[in-house]
Amino acid sequence: MKQADYMAVAEKAMNQIKKGAFLTVKAGEALNTMTIGWATIGYVWRRPIFMVAVRDSRHTFGIIEKAADFTVSVPMTDMQDAVMFCGTKSGRDYDKFKECSLELSDSKKVTSPIINTPGLHFECKIVFKAAMDPVYLDAECEKLYPDRDYHTLYFGEIQDCYEL
Amino acid sequence: MKQADYMAVAEKAMNQIKKGAFLTVKAGEALNTMTIGWATIGYVWRRPIFMVAVRDSRHTFGIIEKAADFTVSVPMTDMQDAVMFCGTKSGRDYDKFKECSLELSDSKKVTSPIINTPGLHFECKIVFKAAMDPVYLDAECEKLYPDRDYHTLYFGEIQDCYEL
Repeated sequence: MKQADYMAVAEKAMNQIKKGAFLTVKAGEALNTMTIGWATIGYVWRRPIFMVAVRDSRHTFGIIEKAADFTVSVPMTDMQDAVMFCGTKSGRDYDKFKECSLELSDSKKVTSPIINTPGLHFECKIVFKAAMDPVYLDAECEKLYPDRDYHTLYFGEIQDCYEL
Repeated sequence: MKQADYMAVAEKAMNQIKKGAFLTVKAGEALNTMTIGWATIGYVWRRPIFMVAVRDSRHTFGIIEKAADFTVSVPMTDMQDAVMFCGTKSGRDYDKFKECSLELSDSKKVTSPIINTPGLHFECKIVFKAAMDPVYLDAECEKLYPDRDYHTLYFGEIQDCYEL
């Protein structure tokens, strides 16, 4: 395990996130992971911030709405099969961890675990969220929502960032 | 002028933004610049995204609410005097460009001009915005708003990114 500066690894992380990374969330006994392809990283409210987006239709949405935190695990080895499965199948129908042989590890600072895999890991405490109001969305972006299942944006304060 | 990959320069940009950068906005004849210290950078809605935050109490807020775009100019020389002035004085009371001897240049892709100074420049088209609902804000972050003048978050699609 190697500690990492979140902005020093932002480019490397973002390049892989575009191809797929794992957003893992735990609230009480409920636990799920899903593939994300979008994120922003920076500094807001005097805190290092990692923003993720979850569609209201997702199984993960019901969990993250009750959660205090989330993790993002950005694989640096070929995990495309798991990325594909976790991005197209629902945690309502499958135990994604079992189906994809994904091993979990306890996080160091938050409740949600990380995916134990070589790569970058961000442990984030949710400090703000905003449901997307389509009134304020560009018409071209609106086309990404034919079913009107908009994202909620979750802003996580980065509590820890490291490479496995 | 040197073209830049927005994520390749994100770390360099963010390190300076924390110390102060210029958010410049034009809508019709109205034009202003203000100092920002917060931002996030990434990829959302299949687009490169730069997020900035503007308090509703700001002169710039009235302009950006009518604007289609904004620019962020991240100085790479010592501009602390201008950063301080533009972060503490209002465009309602001062012509900041004149007071700080800030020269403007036309942007290449958007209406809002850039500050013509050595550094990184981001030209951004506004594709989404979200007013902050304090109900969903962490109690520690809430302390940054004793006057309850919350930020609105503006998500700009990066149209161009270059170094002067």
